[in-house]
Amino acid sequence: MDERINLAEKLGLLEAPYRPGIVGYLNDYKLVVVKVHGAFVWHKHDDTDDFFLVLRGHLTIKLRDRNVELDEGELFVVPRGVEHCPEADEEAHVLLIEPRGTRNTGDVGGELTAEEREI
Amino acid sequence: MDERINLAEKLGLLEAPYRPGIVGYLNDYKLVVVKVHGAFVWHKHDDTDDFFLVLRGHLTIKLRDRNVELDEGELFVVPRGVEHCPEADEEAHVLLIEPRGTRNTGDVGGELTAEEREI
Repeated sequence: MDERINLAEKLGLLEAPYRPGIVGYLNDYKLVVVKVHGAFVWHKHDDTDDFFLVLRGHLTIKLRDRNVELDEGELFVVPRGVEHCPEADEEAHVLLIEPRGTRNTGDVGGELTAEEREI
Repeated sequence: MDERINLAEKLGLLEAPYRPGIVGYLNDYKLVVVKVHGAFVWHKHDDTDDFFLVLRGHLTIKLRDRNVELDEGELFVVPRGVEHCPEADEEAHVLLIEPRGTRNTGDVGGELTAEEREI
């Protein structure tokens, strides 16, 4: 993983929404691409902030008190401990950055929980 | 800084190349945008990897043994301790992610060293 990473190419390797793939690392952080389509699950990460950058499409990050609407080239950092639920009416492509070992479904787990895997 | 961040808008606030601006934070990391034009300075960071994502244009990251060529939507993580020199023949726009306090000119310092500032 010591060469350039083309994010669109990596996203083309993903089979389905909410099946994230690790494309690289920054110190103890993983760089992850994911397709978002439909609603994810409400969850939070008590130990870390959560970085979202929209690469394609439109992403809504639902918070308990408001929605954050992100278009391509826009990012949002969900503060640690804040419940959120990503959602996209049409498929959106997103770059996530989180500490290695961070579970995609945070404190709730469940059927959308994904194994960490490199692509 | 708890709202969405439009990277193109933030880049529009930068006066000149190599005058980085902090647009947000992810835990102990700063999220930085910078315009690159011309050659920067050879340097390294002994304590951290260095994340580059090209948002617009083309960026060359010169390493001692090769060049890494990045177009829009491509990223590269320079491993800690590796000397590198960013360069762009035409203005390129870049997102950097580094631990807070990381000096842009790494181990060498000099006139291109920039104060940390939020924009």
